[in-house]
Amino acid sequence: MFGLPGLLCTVSLQCGSTPTKQHVDIYGPVGLRSFIRMSLEVSHSQLVFPYTVHELLPSEDQCPAEEFRDFSRYTRDCCSLSSDEQIIAADPTDGTYCLLENEQFTVKAFKLYHRIPSFGFVIDEKDRPGKLDVNKLRELGVPPGPLYGKLKLGSAVTLENGQTISPCDVVGDPVPGRKVCILGDCSGVTASGAARLCQDADLLVHEATLDDSQMDKAKEHGHSTPKMAADFANLCSAKRLVLNHFSQRYKPPGLMSEGDEDVTILKTQAENVLIGHSVILAEDFLTINIPLQKLS
Amino acid sequence: MFGLPGLLCTVSLQCGSTPTKQHVDIYGPVGLRSFIRMSLEVSHSQLVFPYTVHELLPSEDQCPAEEFRDFSRYTRDCCSLSSDEQIIAADPTDGTYCLLENEQFTVKAFKLYHRIPSFGFVIDEKDRPGKLDVNKLRELGVPPGPLYGKLKLGSAVTLENGQTISPCDVVGDPVPGRKVCILGDCSGVTASGAARLCQDADLLVHEATLDDSQMDKAKEHGHSTPKMAADFANLCSAKRLVLNHFSQRYKPPGLMSEGDEDVTILKTQAENVLIGHSVILAEDFLTINIPLQKLS
Repeated sequence: MFGLPGLLCTVSLQCGSTPTKQHVDIYGPVGLRSFIRMSLEVSHSQLVFPYTVHELLPSEDQCPAEEFRDFSRYTRDCCSLSSDEQIIAADPTDGTYCLLENEQFTVKAFKLYHRIPSFGFVIDEKDRPGKLDVNKLRELGVPPGPLYGKLKLGSAVTLENGQTISPCDVVGDPVPGRKVCILGDCSGVTASGAARLCQDADLLVHEATLDDSQMDKAKEHGHSTPKMAADFANLCSAKRLVLNHFSQRYKPPGLMSEGDEDVTILKTQAENVLIGHSVILAEDFLTINIPLQKLS
Repeated sequence: MFGLPGLLCTVSLQCGSTPTKQHVDIYGPVGLRSFIRMSLEVSHSQLVFPYTVHELLPSEDQCPAEEFRDFSRYTRDCCSLSSDEQIIAADPTDGTYCLLENEQFTVKAFKLYHRIPSFGFVIDEKDRPGKLDVNKLRELGVPPGPLYGKLKLGSAVTLENGQTISPCDVVGDPVPGRKVCILGDCSGVTASGAARLCQDADLLVHEATLDDSQMDKAKEHGHSTPKMAADFANLCSAKRLVLNHFSQRYKPPGLMSEGDEDVTILKTQAENVLIGHSVILAEDFLTINIPLQKLS
């Protein structure tokens, strides 16, 4: 959160000095909007793009009772909401939030349990239309051009000879969209709908602050261990598990000093539990490619 | 400024979990206190040490009239000042601020001109007592022990035989304290007392955003060029000049792409103006040693 105002300023600088109409939407817990506005105001920062902060309303079951704070006063005190700004409440039946849906993506969030309210996010890419069978189109006498596009997007077309061609005749299976789930600090999920949202994730990022021998301590501080992360990954049938947010005591084998522990123990412990997949330990600037599924 | 809440949290984490009485004092422009309080509150951060924010009151001559903002309402609205918190006004005669004075250091600040009010800071180490002339002390019959300390700290002592020994008889010249001056973004100083405060600085850190061929553009945006930095360094008889805050267009020779310029031009331009000293280009994690002056 602390890095957000600086990130916005850097992005703005890189856009050049001309105001742009490209809009930036920011999603985070209640209180974030006031924090961003005040940070930019006190630092006299001017962004070349408009931005909107959408705030997620947490609930008291997301943290110990004594840690819960009501930040909605910030919204009342400091900010008049513009027309597109909103406080998003969770679906009361399953603790999930619908953040965004467009032609390409659905983005949802869900409640986590931590020392303070925390959230998980799911970016779910929509399926892409399958490949056109050009040979079959030629056979059926469909002329190349706009009719191809219509068929690919799922509409039937009628040829000049009166014949109707249905997409299922000439379009292959859709290419499945990819799903990435990123959880914040947590010792578990509060939302009953979390595992459903994360089902079949291509990539699941879950914290593992301490190793399994410290599970009680981890839970006490609202954190997880590799087994806890892998259990959730199994529940979701996630295809890849990335662990992050390691305690400073875990170091790569080459960088260990006295009192440090080997970070690869976290990988081993998660792999002992995770069914059928390997585990990746996150590091700064790590890039993971998630290729589109190739269909025959 | 954006990095400050994160820095405080990191320092706190490294202190362990036990509250400490070590106090942290933070100095910055009006508005900083509310920013820090809100950042720590909204992020539920708890520091193990107490901290105090001392705010410097800027004036309208530090920036273009249309950019000046009165942030004192933040102080009125959100923060009740604790007994040791203060808003520090500049000395009206010379635009300098007295921030701190203890046995080791004097820390002062002064007004700069920029797109928004900006400040320079001077850390001035006090002189250390000179070396005791042990041979002379023996000759004069001063017994080793507490009398040595008294003399070193500048008090005369009387021996059992009635003879009075004055510090100037047995203590060498004091070791001069070191002076470091760090200026924020600026196209010049507003404070008439700035050059006096920075006089004979061992190290002066001054920005040079653009090279001298872009001086008009630099000034227009409230920034400096190498010549401007070196002129101020000459005015102060600074012993070393460090340039920082280069525009992204300047890159080290090995890292230049199309459209980039060689950053060493900034060094050359400053050295063409700076009298008798070399210029250092700042880079991340650069460490500069300022040795204590060795006296004979």
